[in-house]
Amino acid sequence: MGELENLISIHDLDRKTIDHILDTAAKMETVAVKRTKDLDSKIMAVLFFEPSTRTRLSFESAMLRLGGSVLGFAEAGVSSAGGKGETLADTIRTVERYADIIVIRHPLDGSAKVAAEFSSIPVINAGSGSEEHPTQALLDLYSIRKMKGKIDGLSISLCGDLKYGRTVHSLGMGLCHYDVKIKLAAPQSLRMKPAIIKHMEKAGVDVIEVESVEEAVKDVDVIYTTRIQKERFPDAREYEKVKDRFRITSDDLDLMQEDTIILHPLPRMDELDSDIDNTPHAKYFDQVYNGVILRMAILKLILD
Amino acid sequence: MGELENLISIHDLDRKTIDHILDTAAKMETVAVKRTKDLDSKIMAVLFFEPSTRTRLSFESAMLRLGGSVLGFAEAGVSSAGGKGETLADTIRTVERYADIIVIRHPLDGSAKVAAEFSSIPVINAGSGSEEHPTQALLDLYSIRKMKGKIDGLSISLCGDLKYGRTVHSLGMGLCHYDVKIKLAAPQSLRMKPAIIKHMEKAGVDVIEVESVEEAVKDVDVIYTTRIQKERFPDAREYEKVKDRFRITSDDLDLMQEDTIILHPLPRMDELDSDIDNTPHAKYFDQVYNGVILRMAILKLILD
Amino acid sequence: MGELENLISIHDLDRKTIDHILDTAAKMETVAVKRTKDLDSKIMAVLFFEPSTRTRLSFESAMLRLGGSVLGFAEAGVSSAGGKGETLADTIRTVERYADIIVIRHPLDGSAKVAAEFSSIPVINAGSGSEEHPTQALLDLYSIRKMKGKIDGLSISLCGDLKYGRTVHSLGMGLCHYDVKIKLAAPQSLRMKPAIIKHMEKAGVDVIEVESVEEAVKDVDVIYTTRIQKERFPDAREYEKVKDRFRITSDDLDLMQEDTIILHPLPRMDELDSDIDNTPHAKYFDQVYNGVILRMAILKLILD
Repeated sequence: MGELENLISIHDLDRKTIDHILDTAAKMETVAVKRTKDLDSKIMAVLFFEPSTRTRLSFESAMLRLGGSVLGFAEAGVSSAGGKGETLADTIRTVERYADIIVIRHPLDGSAKVAAEFSSIPVINAGSGSEEHPTQALLDLYSIRKMKGKIDGLSISLCGDLKYGRTVHSLGMGLCHYDVKIKLAAPQSLRMKPAIIKHMEKAGVDVIEVESVEEAVKDVDVIYTTRIQKERFPDAREYEKVKDRFRITSDDLDLMQEDTIILHPLPRMDELDSDIDNTPHAKYFDQVYNGVILRMAILKLILD
Repeated sequence: MGELENLISIHDLDRKTIDHILDTAAKMETVAVKRTKDLDSKIMAVLFFEPSTRTRLSFESAMLRLGGSVLGFAEAGVSSAGGKGETLADTIRTVERYADIIVIRHPLDGSAKVAAEFSSIPVINAGSGSEEHPTQALLDLYSIRKMKGKIDGLSISLCGDLKYGRTVHSLGMGLCHYDVKIKLAAPQSLRMKPAIIKHMEKAGVDVIEVESVEEAVKDVDVIYTTRIQKERFPDAREYEKVKDRFRITSDDLDLMQEDTIILHPLPRMDELDSDIDNTPHAKYFDQVYNGVILRMAILKLILD
Repeated sequence: MGELENLISIHDLDRKTIDHILDTAAKMETVAVKRTKDLDSKIMAVLFFEPSTRTRLSFESAMLRLGGSVLGFAEAGVSSAGGKGETLADTIRTVERYADIIVIRHPLDGSAKVAAEFSSIPVINAGSGSEEHPTQALLDLYSIRKMKGKIDGLSISLCGDLKYGRTVHSLGMGLCHYDVKIKLAAPQSLRMKPAIIKHMEKAGVDVIEVESVEEAVKDVDVIYTTRIQKERFPDAREYEKVKDRFRITSDDLDLMQEDTIILHPLPRMDELDSDIDNTPHAKYFDQVYNGVILRMAILKLILD
């Protein structure tokens, strides 16, 4: 098989491996446009126990551009695992007979790891529980490197729901391998878990915490903002207050450096005003395309 | 890109363009049987915010026969746009990074137009709101031309729900480019909107309105009938009365010309008795196949 | 077209045809690994009116390994036949225009037969009602022959829900063509229908009925066990009693012959303890792969 065996957690990757993945992604830029038949004979199974159009279609687009084909399901209801109570282990030991690689999205923490333990074919974690979303972290790193030319030396704001957002957890872990300054901007109730902050500091990252968007957007090269979900708040009024305070609008543009870029894992709601879309700061839709590129690299490294 | 840029509304097409599309479809007849790899490297995204097996599978069959591949979703529930409240504009600016062309079906009028405005890749309207279904209109025109050898000079009955049926609106608009006589047959409450009738007359079409199936099927070359939906009626008894009156059965065959053809966009319910299926008048299942041919032509004209 | 026309019922196949199918499957073993483009230009429509990930993905994997492509739906809700009340006959006469072969799963007995009557393209029954699941029976026969080297002369236990399980009905019918001994092991309320037992005996099969797992697993070459579904029991306590009695665990291993193999159509619940998974008796996950091989053979025999 390929150079990578599985992709389950950002924690499994050292800097050398991450850099190699990002270098491979850079080589995929032309392949993504021209298309290839390199994975012509390969079948990718997408097992989405939790719906996610974006991530699923991104993986499918990556596989199709490499010439491969796709089977699977887009929501648990259509599968035995949903309707008939089959264990994840049994589902995996079944699906591994249908495909050459499994891409799994599952609501439970640790599910992708379990899948990899039972699978004789490679497994990619496309989001598990609230902890892990390694391909999102890698595409975020790739976006930063592509757009800013480097990651080392940058100052990066992580903004919004830092408590429950799995993308921001995985990205935070990935950034620990680089010489960066991180500003954490979240409402009191949605602050980054102390364990992750400690991990960052131990890795030598310069971390500060702030509590407003104004502070978040100042003096940074990258603003990475995430959705604040209403269902996380016990009190609806508390949500309304927070929501309005953690909203980036065109009013905040003056506070930013001229070359600050704004990233967002999408979908976005109110936290990122559409006024910003047509400014040179807005890079979140280009980031979507980088997801295809990065996933092509992962598929290539695992399957080729 | 290709000769066509998008396909959003039948209103955007002049006669020359329509004729060119129909000519291209005629050339697709042999390709549809033999298959080709012409669009081998192309990816079609199907975004069906409203389920429609027929239209979706027809587009997919067209794309696969041209060698291309497909990704997407079959109902809004599985997408971010459904579950997470993303705007259509954001969904489009995301999906355009995954594919080479977007085929969209959406319950709102104007949605396909909005999609095309935000998309940097071509968009095909596969049915939006109650107004537009341009590929259905084109496949209907293609069916008429293929089966009757021409469109000019024909007498055509549009029958059933002329008020809410989007297929019949788009077809009516398409027929305005031809020298035809149109008979509109609908129950009082489901009559064609005056604006469309005016548009037809202004285009030189000879329009008459009738209120019974008997009058509808007489002296015409083509009967185009549509489903009358129960949910359109405030009063169930009114529906029952209308339903029985607007039903074409084998009793009506004697009233028809020997070479009258019957078309229907399908699915059909009671409005078209299955007794008719095995008569030479019944062309609605051949019409299904013409949909694949016509959509191959559209994909080819846009992507090749 | 190919050597086979349709595959609707195991009743339609004589021993010569079954053996030919199994021989063709054996030839598919290398093709399944290497992949081929033999059905490159063919389109398979999967019409799953009842969800079944396993069977659907197995067919899709088979078709993709042969180079073909796939369209369709995974549950009735997404189709006109579900939402809009279209008849099965109309759905078939539509879909036959989109594809080269139809694979249908439907909750009603006889549905696949109806589909084949209305279809001008080949139809494969992927499970209809409680009676028929012919490709499952064939893959079970293939698994037995592959793993035991032969079918004639074997002693086989069918165990669990023999009343409602369609796989066990189809397999029982298939085994009638071979010189086998069959032990039927089921709780009183889930015994095999007398009509099927009579059919077996008439075919010369030596049939005995037992009522415990202990008796079921003794002195046989193959144990074929199936899921006992709670919803079949009017009384929940009765279910609990039966469930515990019809459970194969590692305690039963001592009663088995050293070379007895255990098969199961999956998904499995409590009836087959996961303790057994790592013993050489457990062949149910290899059986899954045999499903892909067997379905490749069917597609090849019909389409090539």
